[in-house]
Amino acid sequence: MAPRYAPSLRSRLAPLLLCLQTSFIVLFCFFTEIQKNNFTAWFFSSLPGFQDVNVMLFLGFGFFFTFPVRYGFSATAFTLLVAVVATQWGIILNGLEPHRGKIKISLKSLVEAELCTASAMISIAAVQGKTNPVQLVLISLLEVSGFILNKWVLQSLLKVSLLNSIMLLHIFGSFFGLLLTWVFYRKGCELQFEKEKYDQKSGLFSMLGTLFLWMYLPTFNSVLVDDRIPGRKLKAVCSTYLALAVSAVTAASMSSLCHPRGKVNMTQMQQCILAGGVAVGVSVSGVQHPWEAMTIGFTAAVIATIGHQYLQTQMLHGFQCHDTCATLSSFGLPGLLGWVAHLLLEIRDCDDQTTAIRFAVFHICSLLITIALSLSTGLITGLLLKLEVCRRPPDNKCFDDQVYWEVCHVQLYRCFVQFLETQLKIFFYFTVSSSRGKKVRT
Amino acid sequence: MAPRYAPSLRSRLAPLLLCLQTSFIVLFCFFTEIQKNNFTAWFFSSLPGFQDVNVMLFLGFGFFFTFPVRYGFSATAFTLLVAVVATQWGIILNGLEPHRGKIKISLKSLVEAELCTASAMISIAAVQGKTNPVQLVLISLLEVSGFILNKWVLQSLLKVSLLNSIMLLHIFGSFFGLLLTWVFYRKGCELQFEKEKYDQKSGLFSMLGTLFLWMYLPTFNSVLVDDRIPGRKLKAVCSTYLALAVSAVTAASMSSLCHPRGKVNMTQMQQCILAGGVAVGVSVSGVQHPWEAMTIGFTAAVIATIGHQYLQTQMLHGFQCHDTCATLSSFGLPGLLGWVAHLLLEIRDCDDQTTAIRFAVFHICSLLITIALSLSTGLITGLLLKLEVCRRPPDNKCFDDQVYWEVCHVQLYRCFVQFLETQLKIFFYFTVSSSRGKKVRT
Amino acid sequence: MAPRYAPSLRSRLAPLLLCLQTSFIVLFCFFTEIQKNNFTAWFFSSLPGFQDVNVMLFLGFGFFFTFPVRYGFSATAFTLLVAVVATQWGIILNGLEPHRGKIKISLKSLVEAELCTASAMISIAAVQGKTNPVQLVLISLLEVSGFILNKWVLQSLLKVSLLNSIMLLHIFGSFFGLLLTWVFYRKGCELQFEKEKYDQKSGLFSMLGTLFLWMYLPTFNSVLVDDRIPGRKLKAVCSTYLALAVSAVTAASMSSLCHPRGKVNMTQMQQCILAGGVAVGVSVSGVQHPWEAMTIGFTAAVIATIGHQYLQTQMLHGFQCHDTCATLSSFGLPGLLGWVAHLLLEIRDCDDQTTAIRFAVFHICSLLITIALSLSTGLITGLLLKLEVCRRPPDNKCFDDQVYWEVCHVQLYRCFVQFLETQLKIFFYFTVSSSRGKKVRT
Repeated sequence: MAPRYAPSLRSRLAPLLLCLQTSFIVLFCFFTEIQKNNFTAWFFSSLPGFQDVNVMLFLGFGFFFTFPVRYGFSATAFTLLVAVVATQWGIILNGLEPHRGKIKISLKSLVEAELCTASAMISIAAVQGKTNPVQLVLISLLEVSGFILNKWVLQSLLKVSLLNSIMLLHIFGSFFGLLLTWVFYRKGCELQFEKEKYDQKSGLFSMLGTLFLWMYLPTFNSVLVDDRIPGRKLKAVCSTYLALAVSAVTAASMSSLCHPRGKVNMTQMQQCILAGGVAVGVSVSGVQHPWEAMTIGFTAAVIATIGHQYLQTQMLHGFQCHDTCATLSSFGLPGLLGWVAHLLLEIRDCDDQTTAIRFAVFHICSLLITIALSLSTGLITGLLLKLEVCRRPPDNKCFDDQVYWEVCHVQLYRCFVQFLETQLKIFFYFTVSSSRGKKVRT
Repeated sequence: MAPRYAPSLRSRLAPLLLCLQTSFIVLFCFFTEIQKNNFTAWFFSSLPGFQDVNVMLFLGFGFFFTFPVRYGFSATAFTLLVAVVATQWGIILNGLEPHRGKIKISLKSLVEAELCTASAMISIAAVQGKTNPVQLVLISLLEVSGFILNKWVLQSLLKVSLLNSIMLLHIFGSFFGLLLTWVFYRKGCELQFEKEKYDQKSGLFSMLGTLFLWMYLPTFNSVLVDDRIPGRKLKAVCSTYLALAVSAVTAASMSSLCHPRGKVNMTQMQQCILAGGVAVGVSVSGVQHPWEAMTIGFTAAVIATIGHQYLQTQMLHGFQCHDTCATLSSFGLPGLLGWVAHLLLEIRDCDDQTTAIRFAVFHICSLLITIALSLSTGLITGLLLKLEVCRRPPDNKCFDDQVYWEVCHVQLYRCFVQFLETQLKIFFYFTVSSSRGKKVRT
Repeated sequence: MAPRYAPSLRSRLAPLLLCLQTSFIVLFCFFTEIQKNNFTAWFFSSLPGFQDVNVMLFLGFGFFFTFPVRYGFSATAFTLLVAVVATQWGIILNGLEPHRGKIKISLKSLVEAELCTASAMISIAAVQGKTNPVQLVLISLLEVSGFILNKWVLQSLLKVSLLNSIMLLHIFGSFFGLLLTWVFYRKGCELQFEKEKYDQKSGLFSMLGTLFLWMYLPTFNSVLVDDRIPGRKLKAVCSTYLALAVSAVTAASMSSLCHPRGKVNMTQMQQCILAGGVAVGVSVSGVQHPWEAMTIGFTAAVIATIGHQYLQTQMLHGFQCHDTCATLSSFGLPGLLGWVAHLLLEIRDCDDQTTAIRFAVFHICSLLITIALSLSTGLITGLLLKLEVCRRPPDNKCFDDQVYWEVCHVQLYRCFVQFLETQLKIFFYFTVSSSRGKKVRT
């Protein structure tokens, strides 16, 4: 099967990537300009933040996806590829100033583009392992376009701030991914894929990625917070940190409570400890006190774990959604919770009722627009990529590096040698004992 | 055995964690306030430092403990859990202002709480693998309480500076852990535990954690150094960096010299390359010249390696202390060396004899108080947690993930398939050769 | 063989390292002084950069070399050792002020020393696995001396700026390493070494190291860029980031195009995604627009992948150079490309022809001097270290941890147990069936 399937990589992936890359270079050549004014202060305080987001995107997500036993190379390398293409596309779309025909580049626009890419990564989490790299690249391009369209609609129609509109990335990404995986559903996949399990080492690699995501989420949530108002960035960092702490504790306890024999499921815990940070990220401009962040973190982790335990199989059997990394319960539900928390917190802080109602209406509209856009773009993307031309990997090649990667069979070779040794010993043993047997018989 | 032992996780860990977490949230709700004044400058210069300490605590220590072959999940995930609970507790105790009934939170108080948690991590290093997560959480809570009590006593009684009192964390942590492991001693454990060994991959994971601890120790030692006096922070960074460099070289050479066939022991090297940074950390406010730091680093690595080689078995057989990560020689002895170096360096810099004697008396008192408090709190903690109610893992379940984690038996399954294949071939071979044998005989 | 070979570590490595370390401490004791004036601003903006370079050097390169199946311990630990020795030596040589007899230390001199060490790491990449740690330490010392000599010659003879002279580190390192591996050539090594292959886990560890190198290259290239002229550092960061992005995409496509069945080779991709960053690093002071950096990144990745695919075997068979990590195509050729790009970009920006010609002459001279010095010092180093006294590892011990490290045979032990079980079953089976056979026969 492999020799018949693999060439698709060469015949489709390489030309696609090279064409994309060349056109990006041409676009950058004619339209970009580096923005120079008034960045020095922001630049030096943001350079470490930029590096942290970098680490989350390329290393964090890359290793977050490595838990299937034989999927390590694809998880890390395709994530790198996809993230890199999506970020370049994000820089172009984000910096576009249509009236001037120019694309602005600054450290801030790089960071913004990386946050958009994070949204694409969340979508990809839902279809990881069941798609080929060509599909992954196209998904990320369409997702980033959809997300930036959504951001633009929210900003121009509802006057939502940059921070609030970008932080909806978790909700957008997860609903996009969900519709994608629903469209991509394969018959007969109600059972778990054969190679979707994790072993001790692949679970540890995945833990490494999760920890990088977990540790740098405070930076992720605060990197776009305006630091000219003193204390706002500090508040964002502290809130996210405490919410993450609470959600780690809660996810571990809930995972143990849900298990029939009281054990903890490693991937479940990994996918749920991020919930608190996600929820606080969505509501970051509304949270005023640490305990609010902690309560949000607690609730988010409870919802995520219960969702992971019961909703995931329900989605698979009831709605035919095979959600590889539990995107709905890890990012979607906590994101929605954060949205609700933001609404409640802002209404509490409003002085008069009119402002409160006004805010609520705008807030609800922004959610509805986001979900509508994410579902519709997800549907379009899914239908486009389901076409025969994309050549999805066959069922028995899902979650397998061997299709795309040159894998040396060191392990297999060793097993073979060992087997031969065993056989030799058996032959020797048999010969000896049969000759003995003869002696005895004679 | 597993089905009978595992439920303890659900029946004890989950309720304990959920209760703790809820009460933390309540405490934060009624008593905390974010400190806003005069932090902006410190905040922006410290945010990267905060992230680095974060990485050390969650990733560094987590992977530092992964060297036993089957202990990866427990090492990383329980470290995360314990660190997260201990840090919240540390924030509460550190920020407590009893006269106002308020708990202050700032980035500095988060960093301080993380340093206290590092002290708990060092204690836990001594009992890692032989305790269950319930015990680990309780140990960390009591250790952090003890350490903050010690800090408070030193600061109010002896007017020790914040930096110097916090940097005794290595000494406090290691003596606390030592008494703990002495109390927890199991009969018949003079021999190494069966699963305590490392293999090639688990040794590499552990190297990853060690490298993160090693690389970020300069930040760890300098994060609380007052940066209003120019040059002090630079001095702390350079000193720690050079001491670590020297101690890496020395630890490798000494490890090779100690080995009967001149080889290097990986875990020994891992646990000793940190010694220089630990020693310089304790004496950080006294070190003036790079060569002093380097000499301290050299001596610390020599002491740590020799301690690891000869003292560890001595402790096991003579004093019945099974010290999993060699806490005494990796953190305790280098810490004491740093204390001595600090004493000598400060006395040398004193102008008159009176000040010198005065300093020496105060310095010696602070060590005695620290050791006394660490030993007594360690003893109390050990006796409390030895009670039947905590249900220690049985000997054959030590250093084993299987007790607490849902582990997929991919490896085992493959072995089984391979075994079946071998059997089939043998059967085939036997049938053929016996029929041939018959022919020959007939 | 092992017991006869291993003692060389004790009898040579430990004394060498201890002597070196002691003399370094003595040198630091009598000659160094910490530079205090006018560093505060630079210090705080550079501390995170210093940590990032640290991570690249110790973690990035360490894990970059782990791809051979059984070479993990040596790769990470020897890299640490070598880097630490070389950095100390670099600090001494870099800070030396001969007229005052003093060695200056500042954060900047530490960073400079680390960049020199990076050059040594690139050289070592070419001979990794075929040398013992004694040789590695000596290579790094001689390489750093040669590189600093080169830097001094360029700066004093041709008035090349510090940044431009240091950024030639890729070219210097790779040609030094190439000559080294040519001198070290072993007869009969036209075939790949038996243990040079990678498996799934070692490939993932190597990916981890590569990702750290990849993610922090923007910092690496910009850390020495003067930040007093606003915008220059931003330009360096953005350029490197975009070049790396482009080169990741291009390397993956080219690797798939080069493969007969369209698959991607993991180590090839790993070693080629860095090419863009390397090339932009060399031309960092000439690049003005993002698209220039992206074009450089594209070309660098194409050259590196093609070089890796065709040049490496050519070098092995034609020139007897066994280049372990493809230093020539990963660092050498992209470095040369960067040099050409720098020349073209600077000439384009020149106002009159005289300046352009003058610059070209100086630029060509600086390359010729660098290559001449790297080749000659590489030759001398190679000849010195080929002497019998260094005791190179025998062919069958190349790429093997077992020679230098105490490795627990957990895997082997398990295989043995499994084998015994199989044997028992066979014995049982044989007895039963032979008795049955007897019955049948009787």
